[in-house]
Amino acid sequence: QERFFSLRSNRMFELFVVAVILFSALVIGAKTYDIPENVLMVIGWLDTAITFFFLIEITIRFVGEPNKRSFFKDPWNLFDTLIVVVSLIPIQDSEMALVGRLIRIFRVLRMVSIVPELRLLLNSLIKALPQLGYVILLMFIIFYIYAAVGASFFVDINPVLWGDISIAMLTLFRVMTFEDWTDVMYETMEVYPFSWLFYLTFIFLTTFAFLNMVIGIVVNVMEN
Amino acid sequence: QERFFSLRSNRMFELFVVAVILFSALVIGAKTYDIPENVLMVIGWLDTAITFFFLIEITIRFVGEPNKRSFFKDPWNLFDTLIVVVSLIPIQDSEMALVGRLIRIFRVLRMVSIVPELRLLLNSLIKALPQLGYVILLMFIIFYIYAAVGASFFVDINPVLWGDISIAMLTLFRVMTFEDWTDVMYETMEVYPFSWLFYLTFIFLTTFAFLNMVIGIVVNVMEN
Amino acid sequence: QERFFSLRSNRMFELFVVAVILFSALVIGAKTYDIPENVLMVIGWLDTAITFFFLIEITIRFVGEPNKRSFFKDPWNLFDTLIVVVSLIPIQDSEMALVGRLIRIFRVLRMVSIVPELRLLLNSLIKALPQLGYVILLMFIIFYIYAAVGASFFVDINPVLWGDISIAMLTLFRVMTFEDWTDVMYETMEVYPFSWLFYLTFIFLTTFAFLNMVIGIVVNVMEN
Amino acid sequence: QERFFSLRSNRMFELFVVAVILFSALVIGAKTYDIPENVLMVIGWLDTAITFFFLIEITIRFVGEPNKRSFFKDPWNLFDTLIVVVSLIPIQDSEMALVGRLIRIFRVLRMVSIVPELRLLLNSLIKALPQLGYVILLMFIIFYIYAAVGASFFVDINPVLWGDISIAMLTLFRVMTFEDWTDVMYETMEVYPFSWLFYLTFIFLTTFAFLNMVIGIVVNVMEN
Ligand code: NA
Ligand code: NA
Repeated sequence: QERFFSLRSNRMFELFVVAVILFSALVIGAKTYDIPENVLMVIGWLDTAITFFFLIEITIRFVGEPNKRSFFKDPWNLFDTLIVVVSLIPIQDSEMALVGRLIRIFRVLRMVSIVPELRLLLNSLIKALPQLGYVILLMFIIFYIYAAVGASFFVDINPVLWGDISIAMLTLFRVMTFEDWTDVMYETMEVYPFSWLFYLTFIFLTTFAFLNMVIGIVVNVMEN
Repeated sequence: QERFFSLRSNRMFELFVVAVILFSALVIGAKTYDIPENVLMVIGWLDTAITFFFLIEITIRFVGEPNKRSFFKDPWNLFDTLIVVVSLIPIQDSEMALVGRLIRIFRVLRMVSIVPELRLLLNSLIKALPQLGYVILLMFIIFYIYAAVGASFFVDINPVLWGDISIAMLTLFRVMTFEDWTDVMYETMEVYPFSWLFYLTFIFLTTFAFLNMVIGIVVNVMEN
Repeated sequence: QERFFSLRSNRMFELFVVAVILFSALVIGAKTYDIPENVLMVIGWLDTAITFFFLIEITIRFVGEPNKRSFFKDPWNLFDTLIVVVSLIPIQDSEMALVGRLIRIFRVLRMVSIVPELRLLLNSLIKALPQLGYVILLMFIIFYIYAAVGASFFVDINPVLWGDISIAMLTLFRVMTFEDWTDVMYETMEVYPFSWLFYLTFIFLTTFAFLNMVIGIVVNVMEN
Repeated sequence: QERFFSLRSNRMFELFVVAVILFSALVIGAKTYDIPENVLMVIGWLDTAITFFFLIEITIRFVGEPNKRSFFKDPWNLFDTLIVVVSLIPIQDSEMALVGRLIRIFRVLRMVSIVPELRLLLNSLIKALPQLGYVILLMFIIFYIYAAVGASFFVDINPVLWGDISIAMLTLFRVMTFEDWTDVMYETMEVYPFSWLFYLTFIFLTTFAFLNMVIGIVVNVMEN
């Protein structure tokens, strides 16, 4: 049991596992390029070996846990178990259906479970989310009001862009990313010549709120 | 009176009110999806109940104020009163006219009045504005000079983009957001081959001023 | 003489002058909107009055300077004199030629000379430039090498975009601003399928250098 | 030998060398503009002189090194030698083939070897890279999963954009730069009306990871 853990936290072993996962991921992607059959077979074997290694590892961790219930309270344990179980589902290359493909794809997430720095990074990203809560609420209010106003006034000009509030919100997100936003604006300016005010105030408000969010995170991170 | 205030500052109640407002906002937006009539009715009742709750709350706050005049000097009190009064205007679904829709839409702003963190956020955003005053003035000067020069030289090339100074300013804002700006440039370069200098200096100046603004805010926030 | 200086540094007078300049600037721009003739006349008079006020002010400053030579060594004195002299050139609305328009436009720069905060802002912007010197040199090297490589390989694919190195640099600047850059890429990928490497490495290098520049400024500003 | 080193670290000489390199680079680029033949000849001579100066300089440095092996362990020495050797390859303007052009282009990199501040800048850029390692790995995982899902579902809608995983990754990079991303989205939304979720979650995840990367660098730099 201890040897398993020392192996898992061994840097060289970690690098080897990451390399195999990355390589197997790239192989699924690069179907078109000709890869010799025996290379594919070796990768397949290594992939299976790693899956079984992690199955054994998580089984030991589960057996070693005195309180079985609290084991699954740790989200990382839950995540590891899920990934290993999904990895165990057998897929033959012949029945390369959509579900099989998706399962193989999500196996790449095992990497997060293996590399401790990725776990730390994800943890810090998730911790940063709640601070954003109120800025996201404010953004939602801005988006909602502009989308509702836009859907009320511009629906007859272009129903594809302003058909209902949810479609208008998507259009406004497009405007926020500056993606051909002048096409959207020029179209409505032909009917309402002052509608540039609608777009410019929207851009200023959202840019300002976004900037504040970024600055807020920087300041928060620096204090800790 | 005190129970009203303790209710208002109660976290669970706040969450409940926000949920009702958000849900009622989403209902207006999602007309196309079929929502059962009785759900709509319950939301309508909750909406009305909250409006009346806030009417009573603000009335108590107004009555409790010793100096009636100073009550409306606080912009938040003014804002709350306005929102409540507007919320009280009755709208039947049958006479779903534009004005009715807009009033319902702006009711979402009540959320700012309810969630104290949103008030704080808005306050800090508004406080950040005056520091931006001089950068905005500088931006205006840059925009004005480039728009005036552009409108003088390029008006015959494309009057839709460079017709007068205000239209040219809108075009320059488009260039600043990098929205199909090369289309604008290539057009004028056919007549004035060196007009890329006009666009590039404009982009450098505005990007530099914008960056400085952002950095200025970061530094200011960190000092406080 | 002293009264002139106290007037100049008077906050109310400053605001009044800025208002007149802004208003006169907006009037030139908004030719199309109907502004009553007498309003235009009053603005014209105020404009002339301010120009003469600044002429007197700068004359007094020049006369008061013991060493006449060092007066023009201060770039702000030089700038003020230039702006005032240019403002004095008479332009009738009837002979609204291009030169006349441009002179009127650049009068807006007087604002920088009047508002001390704008001078400070401009000074700090100019001070930030030399730090950027080496990043700009690095950027130039990156642009030059990519432009030269692009002009060598892609010239036959699209001479309008890759005709010579200077044109290729403009195209690369367009790619850096993400302006329809995939159109440029897809075109060359038809001949050189791996040319996406050219664009992606370019984007990564310039984004990375740009980010470093921004971070460099932030850190520099915070140390002072 | 010592005089060579004092010459190399002389500021005026450095500026002169940078000017010649820049000028000669611009000359290659600006073939179309007519530059008098004798100017070209002088630049050519200066270019050759500098190349030989650097040849002598690096020879002295190599000879002066007590341990010949450790000389080439310093990457900057290796880089300098490579650039000088490449610069020595003779190219006549008559046989202006592609290889000749490329060699002349990469000579501009000599500037990095000459200006010590550029070396420092590059060193600090390279030092910043390893911190980015895990964010880049996370980005790869996000890109891989979205590309694999996209290639599985959207391949029949547009094989040019979603043909295989590597093509899908390029398409997703395009979406990340907001380059006509709505065109990509609207196309898939006709078949899968909820595919906007695919694009929006992708944009949020990558923007959030990118922001975190930038903030991480800022914080790291400030601590040192
Ligand atoms: Na864009
Ligand atoms: Na675009």
